[in-house]
Amino acid sequence: MRQTPLFGRTLREAPTDAQTPGHRLMLRAAIARPLAAGLYTWLPLGFRVARKVEQILREEQDRIGGQELRLPVITPAEYWKETGRWDSLEPVAFRTRDHGGHEYMIAYTHEELVMHHARNEIQSYRQLPAIVYHFQEKGRDEARPRAGLLRVREFVMKDAYSIDKDWDGLDRSYWAEHGAYARSFERMGLDAVSVESDTGNMGGDVAHEFQVLSEVGEDRIVLCSACDYRANMEKATRRVVPGAAVAADGAPTRIATPGVTTIERLEATLGRPAGAFLKTMLLRAGDGVVAVVLPGDREANEAKLRKLLGVNEVKFAGEGDFAAAGGVAGFVGPVGLKARVILDTSVEDRPYVAGANAKDAHLDRVVPGRDFQGERADVHDVRDGDACPKCDGTLRIVRGVEVGNIFKFGPYYADKMGGTYLAEDGTRKPLMFGSYGIGISRAVQTVIETHHDDRGIVWPISVAPFEAHVVALPMKDAVVVAAAERVVADLEAQGVEVLYDDRDESAGVKFADADLIGIPFRVTVSARGMKAGTVEVKPRERTEVENVPAADAAERITGLVRAARAKLQ
Amino acid sequence: MRQTPLFGRTLREAPTDAQTPGHRLMLRAAIARPLAAGLYTWLPLGFRVARKVEQILREEQDRIGGQELRLPVITPAEYWKETGRWDSLEPVAFRTRDHGGHEYMIAYTHEELVMHHARNEIQSYRQLPAIVYHFQEKGRDEARPRAGLLRVREFVMKDAYSIDKDWDGLDRSYWAEHGAYARSFERMGLDAVSVESDTGNMGGDVAHEFQVLSEVGEDRIVLCSACDYRANMEKATRRVVPGAAVAADGAPTRIATPGVTTIERLEATLGRPAGAFLKTMLLRAGDGVVAVVLPGDREANEAKLRKLLGVNEVKFAGEGDFAAAGGVAGFVGPVGLKARVILDTSVEDRPYVAGANAKDAHLDRVVPGRDFQGERADVHDVRDGDACPKCDGTLRIVRGVEVGNIFKFGPYYADKMGGTYLAEDGTRKPLMFGSYGIGISRAVQTVIETHHDDRGIVWPISVAPFEAHVVALPMKDAVVVAAAERVVADLEAQGVEVLYDDRDESAGVKFADADLIGIPFRVTVSARGMKAGTVEVKPRERTEVENVPAADAAERITGLVRAARAKLQ
Repeated sequence: MRQTPLFGRTLREAPTDAQTPGHRLMLRAAIARPLAAGLYTWLPLGFRVARKVEQILREEQDRIGGQELRLPVITPAEYWKETGRWDSLEPVAFRTRDHGGHEYMIAYTHEELVMHHARNEIQSYRQLPAIVYHFQEKGRDEARPRAGLLRVREFVMKDAYSIDKDWDGLDRSYWAEHGAYARSFERMGLDAVSVESDTGNMGGDVAHEFQVLSEVGEDRIVLCSACDYRANMEKATRRVVPGAAVAADGAPTRIATPGVTTIERLEATLGRPAGAFLKTMLLRAGDGVVAVVLPGDREANEAKLRKLLGVNEVKFAGEGDFAAAGGVAGFVGPVGLKARVILDTSVEDRPYVAGANAKDAHLDRVVPGRDFQGERADVHDVRDGDACPKCDGTLRIVRGVEVGNIFKFGPYYADKMGGTYLAEDGTRKPLMFGSYGIGISRAVQTVIETHHDDRGIVWPISVAPFEAHVVALPMKDAVVVAAAERVVADLEAQGVEVLYDDRDESAGVKFADADLIGIPFRVTVSARGMKAGTVEVKPRERTEVENVPAADAAERITGLVRAARAKLQ
Repeated sequence: MRQTPLFGRTLREAPTDAQTPGHRLMLRAAIARPLAAGLYTWLPLGFRVARKVEQILREEQDRIGGQELRLPVITPAEYWKETGRWDSLEPVAFRTRDHGGHEYMIAYTHEELVMHHARNEIQSYRQLPAIVYHFQEKGRDEARPRAGLLRVREFVMKDAYSIDKDWDGLDRSYWAEHGAYARSFERMGLDAVSVESDTGNMGGDVAHEFQVLSEVGEDRIVLCSACDYRANMEKATRRVVPGAAVAADGAPTRIATPGVTTIERLEATLGRPAGAFLKTMLLRAGDGVVAVVLPGDREANEAKLRKLLGVNEVKFAGEGDFAAAGGVAGFVGPVGLKARVILDTSVEDRPYVAGANAKDAHLDRVVPGRDFQGERADVHDVRDGDACPKCDGTLRIVRGVEVGNIFKFGPYYADKMGGTYLAEDGTRKPLMFGSYGIGISRAVQTVIETHHDDRGIVWPISVAPFEAHVVALPMKDAVVVAAAERVVADLEAQGVEVLYDDRDESAGVKFADADLIGIPFRVTVSARGMKAGTVEVKPRERTEVENVPAADAAERITGLVRAARAKLQ
């Protein structure tokens, strides 16, 4: 298409509040524009990219037998109430109400609705397995929309749902989706790794995230340097390597620590390393008080605690709880505490300094298991250099952008919603369920975050808005214009997608825009080239140009385009 | 694809509350399923139809230079407030609020948002004209969702917006869209006519609707029997043909009409036809009272009144208004009334009986223009047999389904929102605006309403979910299954879209489902056919079958499919 009427203008400078390189380039290249925080319009260039991402996802879902359908955005409260998510999603959901007073959620996701259809449409084992999917808007009232399209409040998700007879079937569907995800990301030029993840507010137990490693990511990913162990921070574990044995020479003794209420100050006051102390956190969980005990040099992991305690949110204990448990703020310790005690797996069986449950006092020589009891559980963050739980390697922590996630629910939704089918043995069994999501807008910006240089975007051809960018210079030269239009027509006849820069602008402006927009092949038809009978071809990712006889230009460029496409198919 | 895992089961009977033939068939054939009143999920068969409709619309928008983009569904209140539609659309809109208290509308339409982008992206006349469009959900809180997909509360609309420099440009864009609409409907098998229409709550002045004539339609369309005059009831006018002259022999005289408060009872009491009376309606409009005077045999047209009075809703006058105007309920008349009087164009200059503004009394021999004055305006409904306003023909009224509408706004939105561009003469001028909408779900059901028989749907091939339906009978016959799978593979290799009925069901069930689903060509591979070496081919719209040698079946069917496609391209 011609560039003159292209809706959406490129910007010389990004707005100062743009947070990442991809955010800046996305705005400057007119990929999308905000209407409000986290609410974006795809401009025509960006929408072409989004459609190509969508088509890749569609083809890979179809390849594993997916059936496309389309659920609505406005979803009745009644279905969400069946699983309890009407309430649990409230903090992050947009709700609405019709003029008759009925309540709806702007779909945060679509599990409940798909399960509702499944329980009505699927009657017999003969109809299983089934995978259905759709591309549909999701509304998520994120408190902090971030970095352009990386975290938004409305976005189109490709969400797929697998429905199976049993765990074996679900396992096959789950790994079929895992494979489809791996192929999809590869085709769009994203180097995504799958990591074990927590299921959060989705229900179920097994889940993976696909993460693209990038400094702009919000997530912390744990990788083994030696084996294929990969998990996100919420789920990652480590092999606990005990330190040298330390003799427990005697009973706990009280030491005065006036005003010393933090691990840091204990280190300074007593001259011992953080790992020599126990920190004890008092939490509220349901009706009771829970004490979580960790070594002073380890951080608690909130996701692990949420899961262990079965709560949506971890809350610290209040004053009354301290009194009831017999603890004193700043000096809480596990010895003699009247509370359920969770003892983190990183706490060793050796003497520690712990709070004395008395103002301005700690206990020295506190030995877990001897001086107090507790339930062992892994509730700590792993950190750089920890031992891999699977091999002798060490773990490292990197940042990642979560571009997809997959969940193996099993009978979780069927049990809550009465989703059953008639099995071969004549009994009714629960529909085994999985769900699989990819957000289009985050995928597009992640491609930009990982495919650019200091002049602009460098699109992988599979998702580029166009494949060739024909630049005519100058437009007032009739010979140039005729030759450029000939190249455009010839390329389009060969099925190459062409943006034709027919604007009456300088070479500087046109080349800067071409680099910014980042179409894979720039084709320059210039007055100087015409004199030599050549057209200049430059792949966006290279600096050197190639001068091709004008008569062969379309054929040469088509060949380059096809070769580039083949690499990402 | 195989029919066994197809998500969505056919129904022997439609729910008893299904309102039209298309509604019943849409549900029975598993095209879509409701989640609540007016909120539907496209099942896989239906979604294939919806996608084909979408693709036809996309191609026709692209043909006239449309650029596809995508705006969000959740739209900030601030843009709607610029035009006043935040308030005026409230009765039919879904609204939401984020956790920070900001307000949003689930987009009812997208004019304000497109104009917002246009005022930012378009700086100079060089960028014009532009047509942008998208496919996006709309939320409309219809008080009465109706007949399945004919009137829903959420639907995907193809909405296009033209932006031009001046009226001439807008006129070109408007008629380009008119042509694109005509081609789009023709390609999807809809016989749509364009009629002049009112602009309602959209703003602007010129508009057309595309109507498919059908008994199931809610709209009343006025057609001339002789010329091309077409309008919807809200806009239609007629040539007023005066009756024979009647002498006005004398001043008005009072007649006693105790308890006679309706035209019907006046006819009975006085023995004169309805047209001999004037009916006078007292309305509220803004701060004042308006009297609308029509002949007793004509109905007032609410849309014409809304437009004339500049109100969103026509309200009847209250008791205080009657007192202020000097009218008595049931006996109101224009003579001596203290109110603005609208005199409908169908009222002739001859004597009528009118209310006397006194209880139990009318006036005889009231002559408009002599005994009272009023502003002449066309505020009546036309009716069957009226004279065409354009020729000597007569008008008839038929029912129609509105499948598309187009609006020529001119500077309406630009003026309200500050949308200007730098013109060639160096001045800033308003962006001239038009908008153009088609709802996908209504289009799909309208196709069903106009393409079915008593056994099921008869899809036009351009929008059929599949093109050929291969039925194997019985599935336990290995020879039949092998032959059927060969036909399926050969057809798919030729690019024919095939649904393969591989279910272990009886011939009766399979044929009934094939007729219900309505794929254009049914291909039956049976044991009996195999013995004769033939495959049976039956177009859905015919009763006769054709037996084709099995070896030639794929070629023959491909030929039939291509010929059918060619008719709708």
